[in-house]
Amino acid sequence: MHIYRSHTCGALRLSDAGSQARLSGWVHRKRDFGGLLFIDLRDHYGITQLVFNPSSPGFAKVERLRAESVIRVDGNVVARDPETFNPNLDTGEVEVRVTDVEVLSESAELPLPVFGEPDYPEEVRLKNRFLDLRRETLHKNIVLRSKVIQSIRNRMVGQGFLEYQTPILTASSPEGARDFLVPSRMHPGKFYALPQAPQQFKQLLMVSGFDRYFQIAPCFRDEDLRADRSLEFYQLDVEMSFVTQEDVFAAIEPVIHGLFTEFGDGKRVSSYPFQRIPYKESIAKYGSDKPDLRNPIEMQDVSVHFAGSGFKVFASILEQDGTAVWAIPAKTGGSRAFCDKMNSWAQGEGQKGLGYIFWRTPEGAAEGLEAAGPIAKNIGEERTEALRQQLGLDNGDAAFFVAGKVDEFVKFAGSARTKVGTDLGLVDEDQFRFCWIVDFPMFEWNDEEKKIDFSHNPFSMPQGEMEALLTKDPREILAYQYDIVCNGYELCSGAIRNHKQEIMLKAFEIAGYGHDVVESQFGGMLNAFKYGAPPHGGLAPGIDRIVMLLAGQTAIREVIAFPLNQQGQDVMMSAPSDALDKQLKELHIRTALPIKVG
Amino acid sequence: MHIYRSHTCGALRLSDAGSQARLSGWVHRKRDFGGLLFIDLRDHYGITQLVFNPSSPGFAKVERLRAESVIRVDGNVVARDPETFNPNLDTGEVEVRVTDVEVLSESAELPLPVFGEPDYPEEVRLKNRFLDLRRETLHKNIVLRSKVIQSIRNRMVGQGFLEYQTPILTASSPEGARDFLVPSRMHPGKFYALPQAPQQFKQLLMVSGFDRYFQIAPCFRDEDLRADRSLEFYQLDVEMSFVTQEDVFAAIEPVIHGLFTEFGDGKRVSSYPFQRIPYKESIAKYGSDKPDLRNPIEMQDVSVHFAGSGFKVFASILEQDGTAVWAIPAKTGGSRAFCDKMNSWAQGEGQKGLGYIFWRTPEGAAEGLEAAGPIAKNIGEERTEALRQQLGLDNGDAAFFVAGKVDEFVKFAGSARTKVGTDLGLVDEDQFRFCWIVDFPMFEWNDEEKKIDFSHNPFSMPQGEMEALLTKDPREILAYQYDIVCNGYELCSGAIRNHKQEIMLKAFEIAGYGHDVVESQFGGMLNAFKYGAPPHGGLAPGIDRIVMLLAGQTAIREVIAFPLNQQGQDVMMSAPSDALDKQLKELHIRTALPIKVG
Repeated sequence: MHIYRSHTCGALRLSDAGSQARLSGWVHRKRDFGGLLFIDLRDHYGITQLVFNPSSPGFAKVERLRAESVIRVDGNVVARDPETFNPNLDTGEVEVRVTDVEVLSESAELPLPVFGEPDYPEEVRLKNRFLDLRRETLHKNIVLRSKVIQSIRNRMVGQGFLEYQTPILTASSPEGARDFLVPSRMHPGKFYALPQAPQQFKQLLMVSGFDRYFQIAPCFRDEDLRADRSLEFYQLDVEMSFVTQEDVFAAIEPVIHGLFTEFGDGKRVSSYPFQRIPYKESIAKYGSDKPDLRNPIEMQDVSVHFAGSGFKVFASILEQDGTAVWAIPAKTGGSRAFCDKMNSWAQGEGQKGLGYIFWRTPEGAAEGLEAAGPIAKNIGEERTEALRQQLGLDNGDAAFFVAGKVDEFVKFAGSARTKVGTDLGLVDEDQFRFCWIVDFPMFEWNDEEKKIDFSHNPFSMPQGEMEALLTKDPREILAYQYDIVCNGYELCSGAIRNHKQEIMLKAFEIAGYGHDVVESQFGGMLNAFKYGAPPHGGLAPGIDRIVMLLAGQTAIREVIAFPLNQQGQDVMMSAPSDALDKQLKELHIRTALPIKVG
Repeated sequence: MHIYRSHTCGALRLSDAGSQARLSGWVHRKRDFGGLLFIDLRDHYGITQLVFNPSSPGFAKVERLRAESVIRVDGNVVARDPETFNPNLDTGEVEVRVTDVEVLSESAELPLPVFGEPDYPEEVRLKNRFLDLRRETLHKNIVLRSKVIQSIRNRMVGQGFLEYQTPILTASSPEGARDFLVPSRMHPGKFYALPQAPQQFKQLLMVSGFDRYFQIAPCFRDEDLRADRSLEFYQLDVEMSFVTQEDVFAAIEPVIHGLFTEFGDGKRVSSYPFQRIPYKESIAKYGSDKPDLRNPIEMQDVSVHFAGSGFKVFASILEQDGTAVWAIPAKTGGSRAFCDKMNSWAQGEGQKGLGYIFWRTPEGAAEGLEAAGPIAKNIGEERTEALRQQLGLDNGDAAFFVAGKVDEFVKFAGSARTKVGTDLGLVDEDQFRFCWIVDFPMFEWNDEEKKIDFSHNPFSMPQGEMEALLTKDPREILAYQYDIVCNGYELCSGAIRNHKQEIMLKAFEIAGYGHDVVESQFGGMLNAFKYGAPPHGGLAPGIDRIVMLLAGQTAIREVIAFPLNQQGQDVMMSAPSDALDKQLKELHIRTALPIKVG
């Protein structure tokens, strides 16, 4: 027999009753019942109940053993009484009556309990991550992560993609987020950078003729941390040649759909093709370019009903440029109590309030319909009715209104839509709802610097190509740029790239970059485009965020085996830490600590 | 029809003749035949022959187009005359008569030709890696790499392993090679390190109960570069719990065997279980712990035949401690010409010469056997015959001899074995021969510092565990440490780990490290072992080296898409490069350049 185990702790079944087994694992839980000692023995695969009686060899030793000690036992597999079957365990119909035990590793007193996984401060959990990772939820999350990534790989290969590795020690990229630098020992005063993303390399792979690339790529950004952001993260980096935007969508939709169906715990998953929503429409309907479509509410512009109306606050707002009144239709929200609650919530958000109309049966009447609330009174019956009809509302419904400069209220309007939908229970959470946001603007007006900037990725192809750049108002030019959004989370960005040197130089020129600047900052890629570059495009879904969604978590650290803490430290392995003088000398650097002001 | 292609350049067959096709790709080769223009159009998938006649639209444009420009063509698929079939192309039975062409991206004059892939200096190739990667051999190598890694992953998952990612921004490890450091912005004066290998994390994963881990893990060592070594490399990192050495072997052998069978281009692959060779035996038989078993020669100790013999040079050597005479039996090497050639080769290697005996039919005789060469004369007939019988040699064979202190000659003896086997054509190169080298010594004597050192990995479990450490001469203690060797290359090292804190502290004590040093350097892992650590072990085959062997290459840069050059530079993307003052300031470091001595 194997010296450690004949079975894992998840293997034994009723059909094994009567046989001998050898198991190894951790003492998960120990219970003493009138002389009999029950131990739940745990390993990666499951839990098996062990029974020791006082005459079992090693009983005394085991009796004083702490939880999380590692033991090896031999014993007889015995069927439990049917009334003591444990349906929560795969092995719950049997137990092992122990005939021999060996302590493989004794545990000291635990700084963090494993059994029952009680809440503990994150710092303790991270300091003792090796214990934290034994806890059921985190252990499951990390296994899920592994299986999700394996599934992604197989699905990508199934779609004809190959995985290629790009360098981790690479060049600093001047745009985007802050780089991590790595001093070079062989080249004094010079630095490598860790990749923020393999953007340039994946485009170079297309220029090299590889056609369909993917990579589960580690990426690094030296930015301040948030719950859903880490210094080091993984993305499913994808690039394809000779493709249109629709080809990219068609390649990735089955991967995403299949993945969420496989691991989505039975939740419904949008069938594909996923809904395509132009950026402008998404802003207008959902107040966001990351709409949560599980919320059925679509906002509408209702300015026409307020312009020149008796509701002077809105009427006078509408006399200014760039203003509008938007309505958030709220089916089933038609009660004063609910409308007042929303109004108070808006005040808590720093707004003056949230105007509303709601429709009800007139008080005391058995039927009929009346519009209630001060706004309805002010704009009068005709406008109120036209508004109701536009919004398709009825008795028992409400509408909330935001007014002002669209740019200024849009974010709040989006929050109000979410709040109304959530509080009315209109959001069906038992699903993963996907959409593509498309037609992002190529450029935007930077009001601080009074100049045109790139909206997102400067390497995207403008729709209309060179002609658009030469003839259109830059703010009107759209890009072949797109996001996948799921349940309000942006899962990825992508674009059809600008593979033509002259269009790229022109686009940079519009954003105020001279040829020399572009050459010095993106010379490697620009140079490659001189020697035959295929049309190409891609995207890069965030792996950590996908796993987070599938695991039903809201913090990225719950789906990473060894995450840094919120301050960017590994408190278990002590990173970052001091370097030796010898090391710094070899790297030709010195530390220059901030001067403490007493 | 799709705007870029209806088929890839590798898709069209005779059965497509008569249909329309749209193709996109690179102008691989252009030939002008009496007005007809032939273009081989290339993409990732293959090459298709295009035919333009002078009346084809765009003929003039295409005629002056440079190689490697990207075009899209429409045309009629036409069967070639059978006598012009090209059997080297999958599409070789058809050609496309072009009816429309669009230039998607025009190429400038090439710094590096793609077609025919003529030899070019590596620096030009690396500077224009995007062109180099279009060349057939390198393109194939990189695709092979991708497929090998995908196959490894599937095989590991098939063996019940899961892939888990370990941190890349982590803590400096005080032993082993030189670390790359990454200055921390948030923690002034502190540094992350890039992992030399995820050694501690994979052991922590075992302590966390994950049982069977693997990872295609990026590793980083700031060491001077060689052909088969890179600053950044990948290993198949593996660790398992509740296992013996044989369990590790049994898990990995089918993966390696399957992989080399799948991608080994028809070469024979050792069946498993692979031969196990104790370290001492490997040294004695092959003069190396990385034996090339394709060479059938096994050396033997033949001291007994020389001790006290008439060959005074060897006889007097043997009077000293630690000396021996080893024989390299050389079947079919029995000619004066060959023996003299080996002798000269040895002198070229800085040796005094290479003694030999060879066996032949006496000159002028029709049969019979005589031993020739000065050594045979000196030791006499009886000893010569005993020697011949020990070595199993016969007429037409030779034996070469090395003598002296074993430690000093062993490396040369290994080279001589290789030289003899290769020059006699005894090496059957059409195979991948695997073996395990086992039973490495745990400790070795450091003669410079006059102390005991760890031979390899300090985290290995000594055979005999604590008892061996307490009772044996450290130099006699073996470790559960093993290598996989293939055709003379070390593919990986591995070990059963020391999972018991007290044994680890004792082992470090023997190597001269106090508890406090161990605690400060390996505190994270040592601490984890306090709370129930399973017995565990693993290994880490080098991915780049495996792909290099499978691709029949001898330089690692031929199997990496974007390698650094021999000086650790990316000459295409300009890394490493200067950092901005602002960046250094944020990272709290200054450069300290070496002072140039005029």
